[in-house]
Amino acid sequence: MAYSTVRYVIEENILTLTLNRPQRMNAFNDIMRDELIAAFDAADADDSVRVIIVTGEGGAFCAGADLDEGGDTFNLCNQRGGEGAALRDSGGALSLRIFESTKPVIGALNGAAVGIGITMTLPMDIRLASSNARFGFVFARRGITMEAASSWFLPRLVGPMLALEWAFTGRIFHAEEALRGGLIRSIHEPDELLPAARNLAREIADNTSAMSNLLNRQLIWRMLGADHPIEAHIIDSRTMAFMGASIDAREGVESFLAKRPAKFELSPSKDRPAFYPWWHERKFR
Amino acid sequence: MAYSTVRYVIEENILTLTLNRPQRMNAFNDIMRDELIAAFDAADADDSVRVIIVTGEGGAFCAGADLDEGGDTFNLCNQRGGEGAALRDSGGALSLRIFESTKPVIGALNGAAVGIGITMTLPMDIRLASSNARFGFVFARRGITMEAASSWFLPRLVGPMLALEWAFTGRIFHAEEALRGGLIRSIHEPDELLPAARNLAREIADNTSAMSNLLNRQLIWRMLGADHPIEAHIIDSRTMAFMGASIDAREGVESFLAKRPAKFELSPSKDRPAFYPWWHERKFR
Amino acid sequence: MAYSTVRYVIEENILTLTLNRPQRMNAFNDIMRDELIAAFDAADADDSVRVIIVTGEGGAFCAGADLDEGGDTFNLCNQRGGEGAALRDSGGALSLRIFESTKPVIGALNGAAVGIGITMTLPMDIRLASSNARFGFVFARRGITMEAASSWFLPRLVGPMLALEWAFTGRIFHAEEALRGGLIRSIHEPDELLPAARNLAREIADNTSAMSNLLNRQLIWRMLGADHPIEAHIIDSRTMAFMGASIDAREGVESFLAKRPAKFELSPSKDRPAFYPWWHERKFR
Repeated sequence: MAYSTVRYVIEENILTLTLNRPQRMNAFNDIMRDELIAAFDAADADDSVRVIIVTGEGGAFCAGADLDEGGDTFNLCNQRGGEGAALRDSGGALSLRIFESTKPVIGALNGAAVGIGITMTLPMDIRLASSNARFGFVFARRGITMEAASSWFLPRLVGPMLALEWAFTGRIFHAEEALRGGLIRSIHEPDELLPAARNLAREIADNTSAMSNLLNRQLIWRMLGADHPIEAHIIDSRTMAFMGASIDAREGVESFLAKRPAKFELSPSKDRPAFYPWWHERKFR
Repeated sequence: MAYSTVRYVIEENILTLTLNRPQRMNAFNDIMRDELIAAFDAADADDSVRVIIVTGEGGAFCAGADLDEGGDTFNLCNQRGGEGAALRDSGGALSLRIFESTKPVIGALNGAAVGIGITMTLPMDIRLASSNARFGFVFARRGITMEAASSWFLPRLVGPMLALEWAFTGRIFHAEEALRGGLIRSIHEPDELLPAARNLAREIADNTSAMSNLLNRQLIWRMLGADHPIEAHIIDSRTMAFMGASIDAREGVESFLAKRPAKFELSPSKDRPAFYPWWHERKFR
Repeated sequence: MAYSTVRYVIEENILTLTLNRPQRMNAFNDIMRDELIAAFDAADADDSVRVIIVTGEGGAFCAGADLDEGGDTFNLCNQRGGEGAALRDSGGALSLRIFESTKPVIGALNGAAVGIGITMTLPMDIRLASSNARFGFVFARRGITMEAASSWFLPRLVGPMLALEWAFTGRIFHAEEALRGGLIRSIHEPDELLPAARNLAREIADNTSAMSNLLNRQLIWRMLGADHPIEAHIIDSRTMAFMGASIDAREGVESFLAKRPAKFELSPSKDRPAFYPWWHERKFR
């Protein structure tokens, strides 16, 4: 696939996806949405991809929706022809696709991450930021609302009090406030951001079973919605029975006892257990 | 309406609700509960109210339930005549009403906030406190239990570990511990507390769409109970379609591009979308 | 009951449960699981136990599953005879039992707490750690998955971002990282850890109603799974009506007004309200 708004580069089992409209501060549009979704599809199908890093070209990560249609930017009926069909929020289609990723996803926020520029990162697993990054859930200042399913993700990441303050004020805030609030994991000098993201990706890719990470990613995100821990117990009993009898568990324990690096071999695309997915994925209607 | 236990003052689009029984440390009773519920009803119906601040008169915010009935204070059957009807916790009726507010609610905790004095503030969106404020979930020391739906709110605000410690010990703690735990957002010198709360209210009232805040408030609080982000996507697709086509979105984008202040005009009481509320509110039985 | 892998000692209303296989760094096996479950059953039935402390003998808390079967350690089908019956994760049976405890549970993590050694502590209410404690959700490094229902507990305790990082990297981390992330409440010098845990247990045992704590523990943990605060209001209206009319509420208020210590008398094993439990406990199938 040829991408026009993103770059897709795999190096040593790490896919770096770079938002690539620097002349527009990587502003989000429908082409970028489709290309990002296609990129996550490609990454899921490719066992050589162990971890995904998402970052931005130039000084911004993503300045939000492209406002080149001015006051009509968010007028979805006009843009998409009529009220007949259910109008689907564009950012949400992307954020739900990232939510379903089978690989760990790291956001390396290298500059402004505003509007959809920050909400698209909430279903990523881990966010790092540059010291000059800026953030804003600016929707109420534009006369629109939280989108991209961010009203589900944000209070689970930073608690409802801070989520509400950021939504009500719509203000732009610095990396320090994002770190204190739990939105990002760490702050780095601009030229040390990507190296830090790659180090973290390496730590994952070099030491762990891809199948373990695939199953753990789904367990943790999806159990956020379960009403009782027995839901986790029912599923993790199955994942433990499956993995415990696998070549990866044998290798994991034997390499640990022998104090040597492990070499895991299960294929995250081909060796999934028969019961995966254990959930019924709801579709947008 | 004439209030006897609270003051209701609107100034420059900010309603300040002041608990006003200073001779009793603003202790909570049934009259105060009814007046606070009436005040939130009045605020919802009044578009001139953009943000609500709740604070206390004198040195305390609210020292808890009025104990003037001594050992019978919490004996609801005696107080309310028999076991026939479902006995409804008094604080919970208030906290659920605050939960349903259509306006942002800021708690300015100017002194002791103990028992119902702190649990009534949990459904408020943002809590600021004076440096001399004191807090306590003292129920286990009085031989009663968590009330006012605080067992739902508190672990979502501060995590289950700290919620359990505060509930099990019932101890009184300082503003620093409340800040560290995430119960409050910031600490202020006593005479700077109300100005700080008003600054925050101003930041909201002066820059954002009232309709955006109404919708975002419901999105964030209610999605805390949703089991999957697609629930948010289904609803925010509708809120985005509605707001995106509105005069507020046009004004929000055009004012941003022109670098001028926005002037939003949607009425939060009259212009709500037809699908609002999108939930079915359960009633106490 | 005679315990072979744990010690069960009650002193001044505090039960200290000590994992006691120091020659194996208190590694977890099926006997330890059964004895811990039996110990929690015994504690629940014994009103003289007000608070439970769980700690480890020697330099470790629990180094994880006993790996003496090498690469077959997690091969449950081999170990337990065939695929016919539903294979139940061993750690989950324990963690759900701790979840159902009627007494406050304090984990005093005196050293390495790795794998099941840390996941078994997540349903404990409060975790304290020694400055030399080490932690690790090492499952992906062993080619297995999150277990013991930890995918439900961990993101609720530390947020999904940190839970995912710890799961994806499987790395060993220090007490400072655990404290910063919210996994533990406080760090203590090794010889001050048990005294600190006992002080906290004393604060609970000496000042509060055992029945209040029994009800509050269930309210807080179980309301984490409720989708709306009215679920809490419906139940806490009943707990408040029950406790408000009880001898413990009378004593709690009267002792407070008289500024004397309270002496609570309700029996947590015999005086439970008729509506307890108000939930239907799901069974593993």
